[in-house]
Amino acid sequence: MAHIVILGGDGYLGWPTAMKFSNTGHDITVVDNYLRRNSCTELDVGMLYPVPTLIERAKIWHELTGKEIKVAIGDLSEPEVMRGLFNGDIEYQWAINKTFSGIPETIIHYAEQPSAPYSMFNYKLANLTLSNNLLVTNNLMFALRDYSRDTHMIKIGTMGEYGTPNIDIEEGWLDIEHKGRKQKFLYPRQAGSLYHTTKIMDTDLFWFGVRMWGLKATDLMQGPVYGIETKESLIDSRLNTIFNYDEIFGTIVNRFVTQAVIGYPLTVYGKGGQTRGYLNIKDTLQCVAASANTPTQKGELRIFNQIMETLSVNQIAEKTQRVGNEFGLDVKIKNIENPRNEAEEHYYNPVYQGLQNIGVEPHYLTDEVMAGLFETVMQYKALVRKEIIFRGVKW
Amino acid sequence: MAHIVILGGDGYLGWPTAMKFSNTGHDITVVDNYLRRNSCTELDVGMLYPVPTLIERAKIWHELTGKEIKVAIGDLSEPEVMRGLFNGDIEYQWAINKTFSGIPETIIHYAEQPSAPYSMFNYKLANLTLSNNLLVTNNLMFALRDYSRDTHMIKIGTMGEYGTPNIDIEEGWLDIEHKGRKQKFLYPRQAGSLYHTTKIMDTDLFWFGVRMWGLKATDLMQGPVYGIETKESLIDSRLNTIFNYDEIFGTIVNRFVTQAVIGYPLTVYGKGGQTRGYLNIKDTLQCVAASANTPTQKGELRIFNQIMETLSVNQIAEKTQRVGNEFGLDVKIKNIENPRNEAEEHYYNPVYQGLQNIGVEPHYLTDEVMAGLFETVMQYKALVRKEIIFRGVKW
Repeated sequence: MAHIVILGGDGYLGWPTAMKFSNTGHDITVVDNYLRRNSCTELDVGMLYPVPTLIERAKIWHELTGKEIKVAIGDLSEPEVMRGLFNGDIEYQWAINKTFSGIPETIIHYAEQPSAPYSMFNYKLANLTLSNNLLVTNNLMFALRDYSRDTHMIKIGTMGEYGTPNIDIEEGWLDIEHKGRKQKFLYPRQAGSLYHTTKIMDTDLFWFGVRMWGLKATDLMQGPVYGIETKESLIDSRLNTIFNYDEIFGTIVNRFVTQAVIGYPLTVYGKGGQTRGYLNIKDTLQCVAASANTPTQKGELRIFNQIMETLSVNQIAEKTQRVGNEFGLDVKIKNIENPRNEAEEHYYNPVYQGLQNIGVEPHYLTDEVMAGLFETVMQYKALVRKEIIFRGVKW
Repeated sequence: MAHIVILGGDGYLGWPTAMKFSNTGHDITVVDNYLRRNSCTELDVGMLYPVPTLIERAKIWHELTGKEIKVAIGDLSEPEVMRGLFNGDIEYQWAINKTFSGIPETIIHYAEQPSAPYSMFNYKLANLTLSNNLLVTNNLMFALRDYSRDTHMIKIGTMGEYGTPNIDIEEGWLDIEHKGRKQKFLYPRQAGSLYHTTKIMDTDLFWFGVRMWGLKATDLMQGPVYGIETKESLIDSRLNTIFNYDEIFGTIVNRFVTQAVIGYPLTVYGKGGQTRGYLNIKDTLQCVAASANTPTQKGELRIFNQIMETLSVNQIAEKTQRVGNEFGLDVKIKNIENPRNEAEEHYYNPVYQGLQNIGVEPHYLTDEVMAGLFETVMQYKALVRKEIIFRGVKW
């Protein structure tokens, strides 16, 4: 039994993570300012189905399981909100027991603006992404320095930090020999969007904090996540996580399946050879749990590449078409001009062994798994808004 | 004749740069929000002598030389202020001719909070450093994208981005061979303060903009600068640049000379083996001018290591003592407990040839040069406030 705080607890990954840890008996606090929901509203990108507020979900969870997830609504880019989680000044907007839960053993940091197209939408949203993501991370780093250097910080980075280099992508670090001398460095990073660049900056920042103050950190370089269901969401559909299917917040597998369901041709950008690492939302929860179960030493920044397999956009499109056809859908694939500046054919060979070494058992994007996603999305077919899928954000 | 805009034109480097380019016949616009001056006031760290405001200095410069330096006072972390420099919405607080000078051929970006101890003073000043430095840089990048991809952007980075690796420090880039494949990367960076970390982030950011939008950029990895006088400041002492001698804003050579002048023992942190690259303020101007004279191609990020020699803290202390003694001063050296978390003995072998290749002729910190600095500082001896030198900012 530990006290675990989840920053960004209302998000696509945050809420399922909260339920998972709550279900395994931990004391959970979630914090969120609804940035993701509000952004979806402002940009009119919609969600597949309505999702109750964080407070409503915590109440439903309590009614159904008897377990408590404490909810604090607040903007973690404000330092006092973050520090309140450690010094007890936090006010819970909902809790059974409103007493301060104490300093967490583990803090999981999802509280970032997570969309590349959002960060490239215009200069204002670029600034918002930059200042939100960096200030939240910095506030967390200074709060750990000032209040709790023993708390294990688990942060979600992205495989996109590495870009698509012409050499193998190692897990976070690279040993370099140069002119007869040796040095271990953070693996060199160069990202393809402003959002992904803020994640490089997060890594730079925590590597500083770990070296200076002996913080304990795990940084998970995650690929795009797909899926809806987790063990806990099956209890009641009102516990389902946020699901976006638009170009801005919808990750590619989720978006393609939705497009297939409503007969919207799958939009492959350019040649479709863009290859990335992917994982099931169930595996995100496994990876974060395995990381929490194996805290790092003081002064250790542990980095894992959090993907289970690599796939090209063409492979995903073809799989979506094949599985969709089995459902009797007429799924078309349409290669459109690439709105992004990115390599459409490239070398891609990342290492991703570390998480399996600490016990994660991968799910893969099999036809059966994708069929399950189709079945869920088809339940909400009537709610899908076709006109919000494509936005044409260019960079 | 070109139009050159200098962001941070009131600072230690900004104002001398403005005079130099004005003196060589260019149209100059300076922009500043007095962050540096206001920070000095708020932290009560003082300056060696009073410095007229930017508007007063521009007026003095005009009276003495007949040349115009247009002045805009504004906060460049506000995107509309930055964009006004390109779309003509800028309002000059002082100018002979208040007509918009047009899109600049060159823009020099000094508009950052430049002090490591300031950035580590507390979490609030850490956040201020992070958001100011990153938002100004991002606003500049997006303004260039939206209005002028032909403008050559020259930015001041820092040698501190590299830290003190155990391998030679190349000029910005590193060719890596790994498992039989090759890739050129930004040289891996790992800094020793939050301020220096924001400069790594700046580099990450501009490397993104250059790759995405074909921007033209030169990034100058500068070492600590020393000195007061430049060719143009000799015209009238009211044109002298800001000079700090405290632990927070005073660079080491300037601070040690001031300490020697007032009989304050030279405060060597720890063993004093910390080695860095240094340069004379006259060479900063040379380097920026040589960079402006050789604009990069579209899509090129050119990086120079902007130092002229490397020195350890002990070498600087001994030189200060020796030169001070020649002035009849009793200069003591005091090794104090290092308030910073840094290596006190380390390998340090940076390459710094690129700027000399484009015409920069180095000054060195000879005893004669240091004696000149002593002479200037001694004129203001009565104004030095002993109690503000040491602040004990720890990290």
